[in-house]
Amino acid sequence: MKMLLAAAGVVVMAGAVVFAGGGAVAGSFSPYADEKGNISLPKDFRNWRFLGTWGVATDEDNQVGSKGFHNVYTRPETVEAFRKTGKFPDGAVLVKELFKAKTDSMTTGEISYASETEGWFIMIKDAEGRFKGNKLWGDGWGWALFNAENPTKTVTEDYKSDCLPCHEPAKKDDWIYLRGYPGLKN
Amino acid sequence: MKMLLAAAGVVVMAGAVVFAGGGAVAGSFSPYADEKGNISLPKDFRNWRFLGTWGVATDEDNQVGSKGFHNVYTRPETVEAFRKTGKFPDGAVLVKELFKAKTDSMTTGEISYASETEGWFIMIKDAEGRFKGNKLWGDGWGWALFNAENPTKTVTEDYKSDCLPCHEPAKKDDWIYLRGYPGLKN
Repeated sequence: MKMLLAAAGVVVMAGAVVFAGGGAVAGSFSPYADEKGNISLPKDFRNWRFLGTWGVATDEDNQVGSKGFHNVYTRPETVEAFRKTGKFPDGAVLVKELFKAKTDSMTTGEISYASETEGWFIMIKDAEGRFKGNKLWGDGWGWALFNAENPTKTVTEDYKSDCLPCHEPAKKDDWIYLRGYPGLKN
Repeated sequence: MKMLLAAAGVVVMAGAVVFAGGGAVAGSFSPYADEKGNISLPKDFRNWRFLGTWGVATDEDNQVGSKGFHNVYTRPETVEAFRKTGKFPDGAVLVKELFKAKTDSMTTGEISYASETEGWFIMIKDAEGRFKGNKLWGDGWGWALFNAENPTKTVTEDYKSDCLPCHEPAKKDDWIYLRGYPGLKN
C-alpha cells in the first residue's frame, strides 16, 4: 500500500510545473517543498493561526520563569481540517518559531517574554511518502530546522537523528505534542 | 482639544444604526462596544494575529517554569497599521487570553504549556474619548476583563482601579507593553 501511494505521488510530480527561481512546484502538494523534497521556510507564517506556545524553564540557579518560548503556527485551513477529523491533513504545515526569552519583575510578578528569534522548526505532512531517499522526509512528515542566521538553508541533515528522538513520546499522535495547542480547539 | 474630539465622536454615534439583538452599533467605531460603551468579547479572536505571550513564573517552592500564559491577539489590519505608524489606530482591539499552565519533564527539558482558560482581558482603542462617564473607558482605551465562567459579562467595574495600575509602567507606550510582541514586527 505504501508503494502504491508513493507511485501516485510520482505521477503528480511528473505533471508539475516548476516556478523559475522559486523552487516550489505548482500543482504539487506544498509550496514549501520543491520537486526533490527540499524544504523552505514560509515567509508569512506569523499571519497564520497561532496554535500555542511552549515555555522552556530556565535552568539557571536563582532564576525563575522561561529561558525560551517556542510559538507554533499553522495555516487556517489546517485548523479547520483538524477540528473536523482530529488529524493533520496531507500538506499541513507546522512552523515552530524559537525565541530566547527574558524575565522581568513586572506589576503582576516575574514575567517572561520573547526576545531574539533563534530559529524555526518546520514540519510538512506527507501522507503519501513522496520523497523516498530524502533524509528530510519520513514517518509521515518532512522535517527541517532553520537557524536564525540563515533562514534559507536548513541545518537538518537526517530527520531520524536530528528530529525524531525529541518527538518519540508523541508518536501515537502522529509525532505532534497536541496538549499544548489550544488553538486547535474551537 | 479633548472636548472637540469627544464631540466628533458623538456625531458619529448619532448617525449610527443599531443592529437588532446584536448590541453592536453599525457605523460606530467597534463591533465590540455598544452605543453605551458596554464591551463584549470577540468570539473569533483566535483567528486573529498572535502578537506574543507572557509567561507568569511559578512562585511555588521546588517548581520551575510558568504557572500561566497570557496570549495576546489583534486583528490583521491593526498589525498593518501599527507597522506603518508605530501606534494602535482608533478601534484597535487587543485580546489577552489568560491560561493556567502545566509544566512537564519533556525531551527538551522542563516545559510549560497552556492548560485551562481562566479568562480574557480586552482593550479597545478609543482615540476620541467617546464614552464620558462610563467607567470602562478612559485614557484612550476601553478596558474589560471577562472570567471564563461568564464570557458575556465583564467583571470590570472601574478601569482606573481594576486595570490601570498594572499598566502604569507602560503609560509612555499608550499603556501597552510592546516589548513582548514580536508579532507587531515584520
